[in-house]
Amino acid sequence: MQLLPGFRDFYPEDCARRNYIVATWREVARRYGFVEFDGPMLETVELYKKKSGGELVGQLFDFTDKGGRHVTLRPEMTPTLARMVIARERDYKKPIKWFCAPQFFRYEKQQKGRLREFGQLNCDLLGESSVAADAEMVALAIDMLREFGLSGDDFVVRVSDRDAWKAFLDAHGSFDEAALGSFLQIIDKIERDRPEAVEAKLAPFGISLEAVRAFIADPGTHFERFNSLAAELDARGLKGYYQLDPTIVRGLAYYTGLVFEVFDRKKTLRAVAGGGRYDNLMNAMSDGKSTLPAIGFGMGDVVLSELIEAIPVAAQKMKAWIAQRHAADVYVVIANDARRIDALGLVQQLRGLGFRVDYPLSSVKVGKQFQSAEQAGARFAVVVGDEWPQLKLKTLATREEALISPDELPARLTSVVHKTV
Amino acid sequence: MQLLPGFRDFYPEDCARRNYIVATWREVARRYGFVEFDGPMLETVELYKKKSGGELVGQLFDFTDKGGRHVTLRPEMTPTLARMVIARERDYKKPIKWFCAPQFFRYEKQQKGRLREFGQLNCDLLGESSVAADAEMVALAIDMLREFGLSGDDFVVRVSDRDAWKAFLDAHGSFDEAALGSFLQIIDKIERDRPEAVEAKLAPFGISLEAVRAFIADPGTHFERFNSLAAELDARGLKGYYQLDPTIVRGLAYYTGLVFEVFDRKKTLRAVAGGGRYDNLMNAMSDGKSTLPAIGFGMGDVVLSELIEAIPVAAQKMKAWIAQRHAADVYVVIANDARRIDALGLVQQLRGLGFRVDYPLSSVKVGKQFQSAEQAGARFAVVVGDEWPQLKLKTLATREEALISPDELPARLTSVVHKTV
Repeated sequence: MQLLPGFRDFYPEDCARRNYIVATWREVARRYGFVEFDGPMLETVELYKKKSGGELVGQLFDFTDKGGRHVTLRPEMTPTLARMVIARERDYKKPIKWFCAPQFFRYEKQQKGRLREFGQLNCDLLGESSVAADAEMVALAIDMLREFGLSGDDFVVRVSDRDAWKAFLDAHGSFDEAALGSFLQIIDKIERDRPEAVEAKLAPFGISLEAVRAFIADPGTHFERFNSLAAELDARGLKGYYQLDPTIVRGLAYYTGLVFEVFDRKKTLRAVAGGGRYDNLMNAMSDGKSTLPAIGFGMGDVVLSELIEAIPVAAQKMKAWIAQRHAADVYVVIANDARRIDALGLVQQLRGLGFRVDYPLSSVKVGKQFQSAEQAGARFAVVVGDEWPQLKLKTLATREEALISPDELPARLTSVVHKTV
Repeated sequence: MQLLPGFRDFYPEDCARRNYIVATWREVARRYGFVEFDGPMLETVELYKKKSGGELVGQLFDFTDKGGRHVTLRPEMTPTLARMVIARERDYKKPIKWFCAPQFFRYEKQQKGRLREFGQLNCDLLGESSVAADAEMVALAIDMLREFGLSGDDFVVRVSDRDAWKAFLDAHGSFDEAALGSFLQIIDKIERDRPEAVEAKLAPFGISLEAVRAFIADPGTHFERFNSLAAELDARGLKGYYQLDPTIVRGLAYYTGLVFEVFDRKKTLRAVAGGGRYDNLMNAMSDGKSTLPAIGFGMGDVVLSELIEAIPVAAQKMKAWIAQRHAADVYVVIANDARRIDALGLVQQLRGLGFRVDYPLSSVKVGKQFQSAEQAGARFAVVVGDEWPQLKLKTLATREEALISPDELPARLTSVVHKTV
C-alpha cells in the first residue's frame, strides 16, 4: 500500500496549490486568445519513436495492452498535438493557438525538480512563422510567471537560435542534419561537462572548444532573429525579462530556429519552462500533408512550485488565492435539535443559491459547532435554534450578531459574499 | 498515428464541454463543503487486488515498469483514497469530505457510454455513519445534476440497502460474506438475465425467483434506512428525485449498507452515477488501524455528457457557459502598420489587466481583422490607426463607434466586460 516512487499524492492542501497553478495558467492563456485542448493519457509508442528522439523513448512507461498494442503513457504533448492538428487542420482558422495543462509520465531518476508524473502547461501556436509569433509566445511565458507574482528579479528567459549554430557549423565545414543534432547535444552540455570531455566530443567536427567559446561570447550578426524578437518584446514593455544565451539549444530533436528556456535568477533550480520553433515537425509527421510552421513551450508544475515557494510575494499570492477559494461562506449552527429539519431546508436553499455551506451531520454541542465553523473558514454562522422562525446571523471575525428572518438571509449574504462561480 | 480505441481526443470544442462538467462538479462539491484531493495516475496492482474484487482486476491496464514493479493505471479512486486517508487520518478533522474529478482507465469492451479512459467525479465522506451523512451524499448527487439544468423529470436516484438483502438471505438460511457477494451478483443482473438463468443461479441458495420477486415488490420493513433517508431528503425539498429500488446492489465487493445509482428517467442510458456505504473498507485495508465508516459515489463524464446533450435545457446551459468563458473581450485591429509597436503596448496593457485580447500577428487587411474579431467572439474591437493617439472603440454587436484615448480605455472596458478571473 505504498505510493510509487516519483509519483505524488495530492492531499487537499497540495491539490489546492496544483489547482492554483492550473487556474492561473488557464487564465493567462485565455487572455492571449489560446483555447484549451487535450488528448488521451495513453498513445501508441509508434507516435514517439519517430519524432521525439532517442532519450525520451528510453524513459517511456510503455507496455503491451490486453489487445496486444504497444502503448505508452504520454511523456510529452507535441506528438499528440501534431497528430490531432494533422487530422483536422482544415477545421480550424490559422494561427491555431492551443494550450493544455495535463499530466505526463517519464521513467527518470527521481531528483529535485524532476518526478515521474508531472503536470505541464503546453502552449502552441501553429500556422505563423513570423517573429511576431515568437514574441507572442515568449511574452505569454513571461506573463504566466508574472501572474504568479514573479518579476524580472526572480526569473529570466534565455533565448537562442538553432539556425545560428547551423550557420556556425556550416562555416566550419559541411554538415548534415544528423551532425547538427550531435553537435547541439555537445553545446547543450557545455556548461556541465569538463572542458577536456567537450574537446574530445568536438574533435570529429574539427572544431575547437576555443572557437565555440568565442562564438558564444561574440555571436556577431548570427542572432538577427533574437534582435527582432527583442524589439517586439520591448514594445510590450518586457525589457529586463529576457537575454540572449547561445548555449540554450533544447534537448528534443524536432526543434528548429528559435529556442528558449526560463530559469530562476539564482540558478538554483532546473528550467521553469522551455520551448522553441518546430517548423518541420508537422511536415515530417504528416508525410508532407501539413506544412504548418509552429512554435510552442512547456512549463512544468514541479519546478514552478519550487520557485513560487522560494519567492515570498509569490507564495503569499498563492496562499491568498487558496484561502479565498476554499473557505466556507456560511456555517449553519443547529442550536436546537428539534429544528434540524428546518436547518436542512435552509442549508439546501443557501447551497442552491451558490453559497458554500457546512453544518453538523450529527448532534454536536453549539460551542463545537462554532469551532467547526472557524475551521471551515466560514465568514458567517447562522444559528437555527430557539429564536426560530428568526435566525441569528453572526459575523465570525467581529462576533457581531443580528436577528434576521430566513427570507431576508439570502439577500443579506449576497451583498457581502464574493461568489466565485 | 492513430488514437487508441476507447480513448478520446479533446479538440477545443470537446475540451470546453469537459471543462464545463468538471467546473460544475467542483462548484457544487465546494458548496457542500467538500475539498478536492487527487492521487497518482499509476498505483501498484496490489492496491486493487485485495479490495476491488475480481472483475475490476481483469480490466486493469497493468504492466511491469522499468524498475520491475507490477503497476497499473488507476481503474477507480476508492483504494487510493483509502491508502491516503489511512496514512494521515489524524491530520484531518472528521468527517472528512473529499472529492476529486480525474481520469480513470479500464480495459473494457468499447460501447455506448463506456470508454477505456474516462473522467469521473468522486465524492467521499468518511468518519460519519449516520443517515444524515447518507442524505448529504444523495443530496449532493442530486444537486450536481440539477446544477447541469437537469430536473426530477430527467433523472432519478434509485436507492437500496445491501443490509436488507442480507436480512432476506439470513431469513432463508445461514450464509457467510462470500455467499452474500455471490447472491448480490445474481440480484445485480436480475433485470437483464433470462428468468431460467436466474432460477439456476439461485438454486444453490435454496431460494426461488418467486421469493426474490415477492421481496422486491414488497420489502416490508427491511428498508428502514431508506425511510430515514427519505425523511432527510424531503426536509431538503428533494421529494421526487429518488425512489426505493431493491434491485440496485452495485458491482464492487466493498459496499455495505446503503447503495444507490442514478439513472435517466427514460432508461436509455447506463447509470449516470452510483455509490454507497463502505463501512468496512478502511478497516480491512489498514488491518484494523483505521475504523472510519464511509460513504461515497462516482459520476462519470461519458454518460453525463450523453444525458446533458439529450435534454435541451441542459444542453443550452452548457452552450451558454462555454460561449461566455471562451469569447475574447477585445480584438485589437491594427489599421496602420506604422502603429504596430503602439498596438503591441496596448495589447500587453489590456492583457495585464485581465482582459482577453487577440490581435493580428501579421499584416492583414482591416476587413479580415474584423472577421477574425467576430470569429474570436470579441465584444469590442479597438482600432489602432490614423486616429492615433486616439483609438476607435467599436462595439461589434451594435457597430457603434467612439473615439477614445488609450488612458480612458481600461476603465471603459472594465465597466462593461464581465471578468471571470
